[in-house]
Amino acid sequence: MIISGLLTSLERMNDNTFEHSPLTVLGLGAMGTALVRAWLAAGMRPTVWNRTPGKADALASEGAKPVATAAEAVAASGLVVVCLLDDASVGQALDGIDLTGKDLVDLTTRTPAEARARARWAEERGARFLDGGIMAIPPMIGVPESGGYVFYSGSRALFDEHRATLSVPAGAEYTGEDPGSASLHDVALLSAMTGMFAGVAHAFALIRKSDIAPTSLAPLLVDWLNAMAQGVHEQAARLESGDYTRDVVSNLAMMVEGDGTLLRTAEEQGVTPELLTPYMALMERRVADGHGEEDATGVIELLVG
Amino acid sequence: MIISGLLTSLERMNDNTFEHSPLTVLGLGAMGTALVRAWLAAGMRPTVWNRTPGKADALASEGAKPVATAAEAVAASGLVVVCLLDDASVGQALDGIDLTGKDLVDLTTRTPAEARARARWAEERGARFLDGGIMAIPPMIGVPESGGYVFYSGSRALFDEHRATLSVPAGAEYTGEDPGSASLHDVALLSAMTGMFAGVAHAFALIRKSDIAPTSLAPLLVDWLNAMAQGVHEQAARLESGDYTRDVVSNLAMMVEGDGTLLRTAEEQGVTPELLTPYMALMERRVADGHGEEDATGVIELLVG
Ligand SMILES: NC(=O)c1ccc[n+]([C@@H]2O[C@H](COP(=O)([O-])OP(=O)(O)OC[C@H]3O[C@@H](n4cnc5c(N)ncnc54)[C@H](OP(=O)(O)O)[C@@H]3O)[C@@H](O)[C@H]2O)c1
Ligand SMILES: NC(=O)c1ccc[n+]([C@@H]2O[C@H](COP(=O)([O-])OP(=O)(O)OC[C@H]3O[C@@H](n4cnc5c(N)ncnc54)[C@H](OP(=O)(O)O)[C@@H]3O)[C@@H](O)[C@H]2O)c1
Repeated sequence: MIISGLLTSLERMNDNTFEHSPLTVLGLGAMGTALVRAWLAAGMRPTVWNRTPGKADALASEGAKPVATAAEAVAASGLVVVCLLDDASVGQALDGIDLTGKDLVDLTTRTPAEARARARWAEERGARFLDGGIMAIPPMIGVPESGGYVFYSGSRALFDEHRATLSVPAGAEYTGEDPGSASLHDVALLSAMTGMFAGVAHAFALIRKSDIAPTSLAPLLVDWLNAMAQGVHEQAARLESGDYTRDVVSNLAMMVEGDGTLLRTAEEQGVTPELLTPYMALMERRVADGHGEEDATGVIELLVG
Repeated sequence: MIISGLLTSLERMNDNTFEHSPLTVLGLGAMGTALVRAWLAAGMRPTVWNRTPGKADALASEGAKPVATAAEAVAASGLVVVCLLDDASVGQALDGIDLTGKDLVDLTTRTPAEARARARWAEERGARFLDGGIMAIPPMIGVPESGGYVFYSGSRALFDEHRATLSVPAGAEYTGEDPGSASLHDVALLSAMTGMFAGVAHAFALIRKSDIAPTSLAPLLVDWLNAMAQGVHEQAARLESGDYTRDVVSNLAMMVEGDGTLLRTAEEQGVTPELLTPYMALMERRVADGHGEEDATGVIELLVG
């Protein structure tokens, strides 16, 4: 007990006095660089590597320890954080490198299936694996009040042991043992956002030939979208209950009526309706299938093959 | 001065003692009924009319004054609020009725061009006209904390004189003298919301065959959408400046890369990408046109013919 306590203190001293590197970061693109800076700001000195060497120079002057090869970088630390372009680049960068006993935390964006395959690949090489999906852009990293965070899934033990370190650049949200879970959460949120910005693009297009200024519409749009997003909770509850008619105030038949006004307005303003029509067509299909008294939740069923 | 002050006091007394009706409401559908209840709750006794008579019965027992014809209803008050199904039904309901000297406030949903035509039609008949676009559903009417409100455009004098009465059921937001302005604001917000819910439908579809519960994804979705909606302010500023590259963190080229992950994930999860692909295709077109260093604002230009 005393000796292990002493060792822990020594390790902590070493951390504080920068005697050894507690972690390695592979990939110094926009995101990798932001991650390294957050750890540097917390008093840590990550070992860093980038395929193209120049990118490590500035970080070296700030306290990071650049090494020449990915193999050296992996050998330097027990905890290896990866942030490369895509899943394929991770395979290339780590090809043939000994991962035995390593804790691999991979923040590279990928699909759920790619994450599961990468987890198996890492485990076959003797490493524990945690996949991460970053819900932030680089300026939000190391800025807790930005609200940025990372979904993690895979080895719970790895997550628990390194939680403090992983929480330095951004909030850490563990979603489950399935290595594909973080990516699925990540992509679900990004997909919803894509739809929202498609709708916003249509809204701004509508006022393009009017005398409404974009910056006067913007606060109205933001408030409206924020208020209406609360409807997501009701959709989730309806999805789980399987009953899409309970307590419905605006039903699909009414929405389809309203869509007509949206489409005629687009035509008047000279705006192509192509960003809205696929969703409207699915609503019409539900109504035609006899679901006019439901809310829009049933459209979700039409999307899954 | 003294006499006019006295008259005002008398009128106010009459209002309070329900001696005369300060306004008329035409249309007792879900929305018209909610509006009437809000005015009743404020101590007013609207004259009400509905094409199908039965709908006035409950409101009569609550203090409203039903009349048999639209002509009688219009004759009863200087301020006439209309809330019918669509613009055509307003033309039918008011056909041949004397509108001289009336203040017509029409909350029927319609397009900007329809609103302008209806304003001319009302003015030709000697009425002042205010078009309204209701940003609320019936349960939000008469509930200030719900945040519901109405866009108004058209006669500023009418709006100013009746502002207190109009503010009873929901907040009142005047957008300009152009009678089409309220509708354009309304439709712009509804269009953006349609896109958001299309994205949300795709997100829920993605997790349909996973073990992520909709109600566990919902709060993450809501927080993410609320946070990302702030980007609307930057898009508006970029639109006004015409410079879509300034301070761009995630450019179009990166977004198009990321779209690949979204599409592959949809495929893995058996989800049709049709709600996301039109927007993604426009982003790709902008990149192909040499705008890869911009943010997504430029897509808006591709929507306007
Ligand atoms: N930036 C964001 O807003 C953001 C937000 C959330 C998630 N992410 C994710 O974070 C990851 C990194 O993004 P980023 O913004 O840092 O991208 P980036 O700036 O384009 O950097 C890409 C990095 O990957 C490296 N790389 C590419 N192919 C490689 C290969 N075959 N072998 C070794 N290294 C390779 C690059 O090295 P070289 O310097 O040698 O080219 C560079 O370090 C991506 O998966 C991205 O989706 C980014
Ligand atoms: N409900 C909402 O969530 C909501 C939200 C925002 C805006 N709005 C707008 O508010 C307006 C009314 O909506 P609502 O929900 O009250 O609709 P609703 O419940 O379907 O009621 C429609 C009303 O229009 C009347 N009507 C239809 N055709 C007519 C005609 N030719 N002549 C005379 N009256 C006619 C109906 O009379 P009968 O009873 O005789 O059929 C009924 O009073 C619509 O423009 C809608 O877009 C509604």
